[in-house]
Amino acid sequence: MIVTLLTDFGTADYFVGAMKGAILSVCPSAHIVDLTHGIPAHDVHAAAFTLCAACETFPPQTVHVAVVDPGVGSARRPIVVAGHKHLFVGPDNGIFSYIYAREPDARVFHLTNGNYFRPSVSATFHGRDLFAPVAGAIANGIEPRVLGEMVTNYTKFPLPTPKVLEDESLEASVIHIDHFGNCITNITARDLTDEHLRRRVRLRINEHEIRSVRRFFAEESAVEGTVENQFFAVWGSTGFLEIAAYCDSAARLLGVRRGASVKIINE
Amino acid sequence: MIVTLLTDFGTADYFVGAMKGAILSVCPSAHIVDLTHGIPAHDVHAAAFTLCAACETFPPQTVHVAVVDPGVGSARRPIVVAGHKHLFVGPDNGIFSYIYAREPDARVFHLTNGNYFRPSVSATFHGRDLFAPVAGAIANGIEPRVLGEMVTNYTKFPLPTPKVLEDESLEASVIHIDHFGNCITNITARDLTDEHLRRRVRLRINEHEIRSVRRFFAEESAVEGTVENQFFAVWGSTGFLEIAAYCDSAARLLGVRRGASVKIINE
Amino acid sequence: MIVTLLTDFGTADYFVGAMKGAILSVCPSAHIVDLTHGIPAHDVHAAAFTLCAACETFPPQTVHVAVVDPGVGSARRPIVVAGHKHLFVGPDNGIFSYIYAREPDARVFHLTNGNYFRPSVSATFHGRDLFAPVAGAIANGIEPRVLGEMVTNYTKFPLPTPKVLEDESLEASVIHIDHFGNCITNITARDLTDEHLRRRVRLRINEHEIRSVRRFFAEESAVEGTVENQFFAVWGSTGFLEIAAYCDSAARLLGVRRGASVKIINE
Repeated sequence: MIVTLLTDFGTADYFVGAMKGAILSVCPSAHIVDLTHGIPAHDVHAAAFTLCAACETFPPQTVHVAVVDPGVGSARRPIVVAGHKHLFVGPDNGIFSYIYAREPDARVFHLTNGNYFRPSVSATFHGRDLFAPVAGAIANGIEPRVLGEMVTNYTKFPLPTPKVLEDESLEASVIHIDHFGNCITNITARDLTDEHLRRRVRLRINEHEIRSVRRFFAEESAVEGTVENQFFAVWGSTGFLEIAAYCDSAARLLGVRRGASVKIINE
Repeated sequence: MIVTLLTDFGTADYFVGAMKGAILSVCPSAHIVDLTHGIPAHDVHAAAFTLCAACETFPPQTVHVAVVDPGVGSARRPIVVAGHKHLFVGPDNGIFSYIYAREPDARVFHLTNGNYFRPSVSATFHGRDLFAPVAGAIANGIEPRVLGEMVTNYTKFPLPTPKVLEDESLEASVIHIDHFGNCITNITARDLTDEHLRRRVRLRINEHEIRSVRRFFAEESAVEGTVENQFFAVWGSTGFLEIAAYCDSAARLLGVRRGASVKIINE
Repeated sequence: MIVTLLTDFGTADYFVGAMKGAILSVCPSAHIVDLTHGIPAHDVHAAAFTLCAACETFPPQTVHVAVVDPGVGSARRPIVVAGHKHLFVGPDNGIFSYIYAREPDARVFHLTNGNYFRPSVSATFHGRDLFAPVAGAIANGIEPRVLGEMVTNYTKFPLPTPKVLEDESLEASVIHIDHFGNCITNITARDLTDEHLRRRVRLRINEHEIRSVRRFFAEESAVEGTVENQFFAVWGSTGFLEIAAYCDSAARLLGVRRGASVKIINE
């Protein structure tokens, strides 16, 4: 059974190792796969996006453990989410918001059955003492309903979606900046007109205007006729429109951070 | 069989991959688990602490390979440590000091049986050429005593413990700073009085005074009445008292490094 | 079956997780091993060197997936390389140049059989949509020739080799700087005279002269009589001569980057 891990623990410390051991102690045959431990510390929004983008390709019955958990030890609930293909274990702090949006019929259970926790649960490391052994139990075939009561009032933060303004321009935003500095917007193909999709678009971000949509990063620009040194939009692998620069960081060059406004202007 | 790795090799280079291949060539069914490769270069003390904190949760018979080894190729001995639950493979430079403290009856063997090394052993990469294949052999069921003679004069550095001063205050120190900037001290519950444990404590570090002990990071402070922007002590998941700041790095804010003095003052 | 991954994706993003899921969806029993995801972005040369140095120790039939792919989506071909022991999957951009040099009879196949790709192939993430599922198929036992036609005009960049100058000195270069700051040159034992090999060598790099060759990092210098604070050459674990400093970064101290010139001068 595959158990994936996504945390903000970094990889330099003992946290990740301790979690892996706690999973393997419960389910020695678990195949543990690191999604990432590089979520910025305490950044539940980044965790939610990255989890959703990373988990989709996994086979049915994969158990995903996601721990970005500034409220550890407080009243925030530990939960398991039973989606239609995968199971998700983590804190009830919004980290599964994108999963809920994609799977509105997912069922959520409050983890209260202490029989599946480690014998002594610290107040500061539920990753090791609660989420890891529960994930091991699920990998062993324990049903989510055995682990606690179903709840419906779980935490879900609103996902940013583009707004159509009065002049029919589109007000969107950057929801993620990836390792290469590509700026992933919240614009999907559904948000654009046929005209836009025929690759004529005017996009404004941080006082720069971008007029070219490429199919891939190294495509020659229809507007400027070369491959290099310019910004362009491209349909990213998550289904969102991205703003990119050829072999360079668009985020750095444009001075853009997550949350930056992106505007699509009609000609 | 589970084989874990802990090194200062970083993850950007070929070192870790080469070690994994060398283990799998000897024991193709080994389940390799990365504890961390982010130990600061050559920092045997950090490796010793992190190994001890990370390995505890693993199932019996796990083989832990720990390679922070500035003396590679010199007279320092390669060893295997047979503890009561786990086996440890690495250089005899003190990296297993915390393990020895926890398991005083662990047996230590000097790795001399070249039949279990790679055919050609380089003088600069025993991780790949010696420790990895030996770990693979142990995962295959080879007994430690087959790998070399038992030794008793192995290297062990003194673990820092708090000192009670004349005025009955306690002189302690920071033994680790974690990924979140929490400062882990060498103070355990045994070192404190009942009064301290009832959460009344005055702790001095780098000219700051800390008066609140929380049970978890997001707890409201009994002293100042809010959750944010203050320092507090908290019992960490390793059993040591930690100095923390809510969703921020106490180490950075307090200007504290490993080794810093921490004083517990009686009221 | 072992499937290794080497990319420039970093570990903080969703890319690596998504690739792993795509492999496991095709071959659930694949044993995925991270070589590294820390290749500098778009640096095909670093990827080629690191892959070659890391993969050698793996058992026969290992599948290595290497994705540093600035040309993703363009005309550059996706390929599989069938070496005498291992299989390699990735873009045809020179990333396998060191492999070709080591295995001149390796056969190369152009991946065109879409039956083994993910149902929808994005133009920006062939790691997930093409290379990962193909690697899974190979791990399942699919023969490379089923995946596409054999090609012979694959991309191969010239590997830097030292040149003998008129005065019989040797002009070499730094081909890699490792995690510890050791500068790996392109000098092998074959390039040196018997006299050099008897550890008398004068090496010039960035206006510094180095006169000592050590067998291991902590060896006492024959020239200066101490272990610390000096530069020396050492035969590295990849078979190349390295320039190092004891427990410090020679690259930083000498101000050396990859590509720097190294000269061996006869006495």
